[in-house]
Amino acid sequence: MDKSTINIGLIGFGTIGSGVVEIFNQNSDLIEKKTGKKVNLKKVVDLDITTDRGVKIDPSQLSTDVNDILEDPSIDIVIELIGGYEPALGFILKAIENRKHVVTANKALLAKHWNEIMSAAEKKNVRISFEASVGGGIPLLQPLNESLAANKIEAIYGIINGTANYILTKMSNEGLNFEEVLKEAQIKGYAEQDPTFDIEGHDTAQKLIILTILGFGAYVKQEKFHVEGITHITSEDIKFAKDNHYVIKLLGISQIIDGELEVRVHPTLIPKTHLLASVNDVYNGVYLVGDFLGPAMMYGQGAGMEATASAVLGDCIDIINNPLKRVPYGPQKSLVKSIKNIEDVTSKYYIRLTALDQAGVLQAVSGILNDFNISIESVLQKKTSNGDKVPIYMVTHEASEKNIRQALTIINQLEVVQSPSLFIRIL
Amino acid sequence: MDKSTINIGLIGFGTIGSGVVEIFNQNSDLIEKKTGKKVNLKKVVDLDITTDRGVKIDPSQLSTDVNDILEDPSIDIVIELIGGYEPALGFILKAIENRKHVVTANKALLAKHWNEIMSAAEKKNVRISFEASVGGGIPLLQPLNESLAANKIEAIYGIINGTANYILTKMSNEGLNFEEVLKEAQIKGYAEQDPTFDIEGHDTAQKLIILTILGFGAYVKQEKFHVEGITHITSEDIKFAKDNHYVIKLLGISQIIDGELEVRVHPTLIPKTHLLASVNDVYNGVYLVGDFLGPAMMYGQGAGMEATASAVLGDCIDIINNPLKRVPYGPQKSLVKSIKNIEDVTSKYYIRLTALDQAGVLQAVSGILNDFNISIESVLQKKTSNGDKVPIYMVTHEASEKNIRQALTIINQLEVVQSPSLFIRIL
Repeated sequence: MDKSTINIGLIGFGTIGSGVVEIFNQNSDLIEKKTGKKVNLKKVVDLDITTDRGVKIDPSQLSTDVNDILEDPSIDIVIELIGGYEPALGFILKAIENRKHVVTANKALLAKHWNEIMSAAEKKNVRISFEASVGGGIPLLQPLNESLAANKIEAIYGIINGTANYILTKMSNEGLNFEEVLKEAQIKGYAEQDPTFDIEGHDTAQKLIILTILGFGAYVKQEKFHVEGITHITSEDIKFAKDNHYVIKLLGISQIIDGELEVRVHPTLIPKTHLLASVNDVYNGVYLVGDFLGPAMMYGQGAGMEATASAVLGDCIDIINNPLKRVPYGPQKSLVKSIKNIEDVTSKYYIRLTALDQAGVLQAVSGILNDFNISIESVLQKKTSNGDKVPIYMVTHEASEKNIRQALTIINQLEVVQSPSLFIRIL
Repeated sequence: MDKSTINIGLIGFGTIGSGVVEIFNQNSDLIEKKTGKKVNLKKVVDLDITTDRGVKIDPSQLSTDVNDILEDPSIDIVIELIGGYEPALGFILKAIENRKHVVTANKALLAKHWNEIMSAAEKKNVRISFEASVGGGIPLLQPLNESLAANKIEAIYGIINGTANYILTKMSNEGLNFEEVLKEAQIKGYAEQDPTFDIEGHDTAQKLIILTILGFGAYVKQEKFHVEGITHITSEDIKFAKDNHYVIKLLGISQIIDGELEVRVHPTLIPKTHLLASVNDVYNGVYLVGDFLGPAMMYGQGAGMEATASAVLGDCIDIINNPLKRVPYGPQKSLVKSIKNIEDVTSKYYIRLTALDQAGVLQAVSGILNDFNISIESVLQKKTSNGDKVPIYMVTHEASEKNIRQALTIINQLEVVQSPSLFIRIL
């Protein structure tokens, strides 16, 4: 940008917004050094401008009127941090219309309105940057777009929801049940009062949509792929995994198999030796494979006021230094021929079922699996103090999801089977 | 760049050079999509243009005359992959003089001639990109420069030499000695016939110099900091580390402590729970801490034809898309007030010494440590079949390097001490 002072407007003075203000307070000397310009947080807009956020801000910077940003011709960059669909979408489109660059952390909005926002930005020749929308402060989208641009991406495996990862880590470390850990996570502030969005995989799915666009040039809406959360994982599942050198993680997976794109979100057994197995607590990790790069992983704090604000300001600095940067948000034409149905995905599986402790149960179950071309790699039948009910744990060889589902539907109808059996895919 | 065809000249048709040719062969469609231009590998120069590199190339592209690249006005970007100081430096300066952008993987040259190369490029307003110089294909320098630009970097810990990491991993996994593993690594091609550069830490030091410039805006020459290799590490050290939940890694460390910069390269005991402890075999990992970002790690293949070539082409694409990108290779003015002498560094230490199996030995040793304000956290004195010699292993609490060195000098002079004692810093 030619101007010597860059003005920034921030919409949304919540947690991340406060982090942004704090970076301006602490690191404005650094930002000036990195850009060679004076970078000024001119206006911060929120409905509530009276509650103390614990960060220093001049009252004259605050306003409740979003047009103090959107209609101010001196503002060059608009940071949108209110989240959700509306009014965020309207604000972003108006900012673009008024030829302001936009920085946002709004994954939900991007995942749903990608085409609308990107074509508006292209038309007005402004930049949309959103490093903060996936993996908080972890450098992820820019590397994927730029450093790795010469690679055909083959696979992306992401642990990209801190809440779910915290719960699974805690269940694994302390042998606790899902509900106990969730309650503790809520008290600690690691889980929302309504945690559905995180624990049912929707947050992971939205982030995966963005990664899939950047990695594969394919925009796949959430309705089009399998999304499964972690609420059905028990401490027994985790113990079995542990005993067999696996950990269970909620993964967003996007990969090319035989030219087809697989996109899916579900809990996954990961071998303990895999680097993703070491991504614990609220941390995020994205493991990807490029045809020339081979495997790589980026790791860090996937959420939180400071880490996410760091990505927001990183985007601002990049826009100031490179306002004309071409926007290679995935190749213009998709590299993907078709998207695979979850039924056609193949995987190894972990199966847990509860059956009456009778002779012939294992034979019946393995017979049905065999009918669907599913062979068993290992099986563990536990003696319980319960007497008449025994849990049975199995690991299968590679099989198609369609066959596993059909086989389990029939197994669930066996008289000896006491509760619907569960399966978890293995990486 | 305004032209619709970008011409690239490659100097050095070795391993990585062949990888670059292979990416052009396989992914030119992708490169065209990402840049919107035809990107043409116009000329490949090497002294040897007859040996088959196993990659397809048109003989008309080959030349032994470097001026076919440097003096060709149609060439926009020069890739330098011959390594070493001269003639690489001369070639790069001439390319810059002729207003060509430069991409290089030459860490040795950058570490030594940083100022000369960068000021030449600034004067001619061309870009120098060198993602491939540290960590092979891992996106590292661009994220550090751009995505994390709003952070004051507090620490960088890098496992950035694949050979050393392979040797230490293998020693740890198989309980083998340094020499045995080195021999095997040489046979497998993971270590050079003269491995000095890798195992004595010089390669790590050169890469650390580049990371330190980008992270802290401080250019510290190799003579100015402590560089120590892994040749003195024994299988006993590794076993002790393992038994005490540590692994030993060759680390490049650059961090700000009390406003002073510490730069050093040495083997380090890392707690097993630290993510860096999971960076094994020939893989590289760089763990860094930003004041707002918190900790993050980037992981991947730190060397190899394909991974490194991927970074080289990533740089080319970035230059094509953003030829005017401001070059924020560290802040213009250093953020660092002073550089710490290794003597003033404090750390916990692992100490190994061999002494005669006599009463009072431990008392004498701990007395001397005590004189230098070094307190012992744990000690292990092994019984050996050797009879008169026992190895003693100790872990100290935090102490200054100066004190440790002075104490060990005196301890080494004790009559009961049989060979010079060794210490390894603990992260």
